[in-house]
Amino acid sequence: MRTTKIFYLISIILCLLISPALAENDPLPSWNDGTSKAAITTFVKAVTEKSSPDYVKPGERIAVFDNDGTLWSEQPVYFQLFFAMDRVKEMAAEHPEWKNQQPFQAVLAGDMKALADLGEKGLMELIMATHAGMTTDEFAGIVQDWVETALHPTLRKPYTELVFKPMLELLDYLRANNFKTYIVSGGGIEFMRPWVEGVYGIPPEQVVGSSIVTKFEMREEKTVLIREPKVNFIDDKAGKPVGINQHIGRRPIFAFGNSDGDLQMLQWTTLAGAGKRFAGIVHHTDAEREFAYDRDSHIGRLDKALDEAKANGWTVVNMKKEWKVIYP
Amino acid sequence: MRTTKIFYLISIILCLLISPALAENDPLPSWNDGTSKAAITTFVKAVTEKSSPDYVKPGERIAVFDNDGTLWSEQPVYFQLFFAMDRVKEMAAEHPEWKNQQPFQAVLAGDMKALADLGEKGLMELIMATHAGMTTDEFAGIVQDWVETALHPTLRKPYTELVFKPMLELLDYLRANNFKTYIVSGGGIEFMRPWVEGVYGIPPEQVVGSSIVTKFEMREEKTVLIREPKVNFIDDKAGKPVGINQHIGRRPIFAFGNSDGDLQMLQWTTLAGAGKRFAGIVHHTDAEREFAYDRDSHIGRLDKALDEAKANGWTVVNMKKEWKVIYP
Repeated sequence: MRTTKIFYLISIILCLLISPALAENDPLPSWNDGTSKAAITTFVKAVTEKSSPDYVKPGERIAVFDNDGTLWSEQPVYFQLFFAMDRVKEMAAEHPEWKNQQPFQAVLAGDMKALADLGEKGLMELIMATHAGMTTDEFAGIVQDWVETALHPTLRKPYTELVFKPMLELLDYLRANNFKTYIVSGGGIEFMRPWVEGVYGIPPEQVVGSSIVTKFEMREEKTVLIREPKVNFIDDKAGKPVGINQHIGRRPIFAFGNSDGDLQMLQWTTLAGAGKRFAGIVHHTDAEREFAYDRDSHIGRLDKALDEAKANGWTVVNMKKEWKVIYP
Repeated sequence: MRTTKIFYLISIILCLLISPALAENDPLPSWNDGTSKAAITTFVKAVTEKSSPDYVKPGERIAVFDNDGTLWSEQPVYFQLFFAMDRVKEMAAEHPEWKNQQPFQAVLAGDMKALADLGEKGLMELIMATHAGMTTDEFAGIVQDWVETALHPTLRKPYTELVFKPMLELLDYLRANNFKTYIVSGGGIEFMRPWVEGVYGIPPEQVVGSSIVTKFEMREEKTVLIREPKVNFIDDKAGKPVGINQHIGRRPIFAFGNSDGDLQMLQWTTLAGAGKRFAGIVHHTDAEREFAYDRDSHIGRLDKALDEAKANGWTVVNMKKEWKVIYP
């Protein structure tokens, strides 16, 4: 009998030790306790607790996230531009004329200033030469190969390791609360789809992005979609609400961005009439662990949206202060 | 003790009586046992049983359905055209000029022949006058009101009662087997979204359709999307694979259509390289209970796709023979 009593006591003590740990089970362990974390958890409780006046049914819990600068880094240039440049180098052997032809010459010479001077027209030529002219399946394979092997030129890490751990936790936390999480990015929809499910847990059908025209064809008794060098849709700025409506057909109740390119998405989510809404902005304030930039940056400029955030009471995440770690 | 024994015996007998009924629990009770039903259930078992060589993971079980003529009727004209005509009658008081202006004059006079003679140009003017010029929220409200009150001119029933019961069962059966069910229709995406969740169990984000251009605006501190009288995308014929790829980003493994407008969707689903696929066609053969039409019909012509079905071994559903009932 004595042994039984001791076991009984030990199990009670263990329970007492474990329970508080379980109760404190923090869904956002990489976030310091502070304004942003409190705003997020308060919002999620308000829309998911059945007794809450702000309760939202699971099917209507739509959360949208920008990608570049919100879920992964975007400096010194958008990672998709590094992909295009890597492609140019890979394809150069088949294109001897590129040595004397812009924008390819600038890329092959590693002359970023010359490339920048060519402006949007040069950028578009670069994108079309590297993103079009193959089937959608072939392009997905090219992207997948690149993601598995390419390294960021200055950080010397695979791009998929340059994602924000606190944001991965936020995605998980929302999904655990029956939110449907979407990417809504100015980046290419077909550039993201091959890898975002593995990295963010977001399936291809929940990705909204910019696209080029595709054309249906039969090739050797099989069907293919050919990627054509022509813009179909730009999912940026006022295009983001359009893309959200086109793909999702419901207004999100939760949105996260980091730049002026996300302003209209944040407005579409919050300035929407009835119902509680959440808008968040990742503010890049950490020059040591990541990058620090906002109003004057050429990439991911955060100016108007920062003013609007203050005016509308949106949550601005001070990366340096509020995130315990940046990368996983 | 005797009473306990009797209860025991009774419960065994009950179990013996109930078990076979449970085993026979037919997921497709409105389908006669026949080629189509067997093809569907054989396919579903092949891709869902873990031990099967054709097993497909749940997330990749994408099923796409045409709407007009596949999930609901489409005669004597597409129901969305009846919606446009009802709108013209409703809006006529504000547009006295329509009395002498085509295509409105034909609609107001109920002159279907004159309307048909105006061809695609007339039809497009009708669509733009009735589908554009309001916000997306306003349009959703207009469609919802119409769906709740309008009656089919000859069948004298609400349109949402003119859906096919066997197809509703098929949608449920696929979802019970962890398929994600999508509509991929030539009809307007925003014309379907307000009611398809209630009627088919398909949420707005799983609807692919034709669309007009929308534009983001601020109105009285609120955000709206304005519907503009300009075509954005036609989700028909070779547009269907494009729309599927744009919205879903995965190739379906199961597709159902009823006309040549679905041919490329059925090809995109089946002529796809590796993996088991299913393509089905609803063949309208029942002049008594619904309508009978195929190769010569002006609406929902089924000609090339019927030949392709034979050549490729697709499942052609003989509505008259294979469906016990048509409408719920």
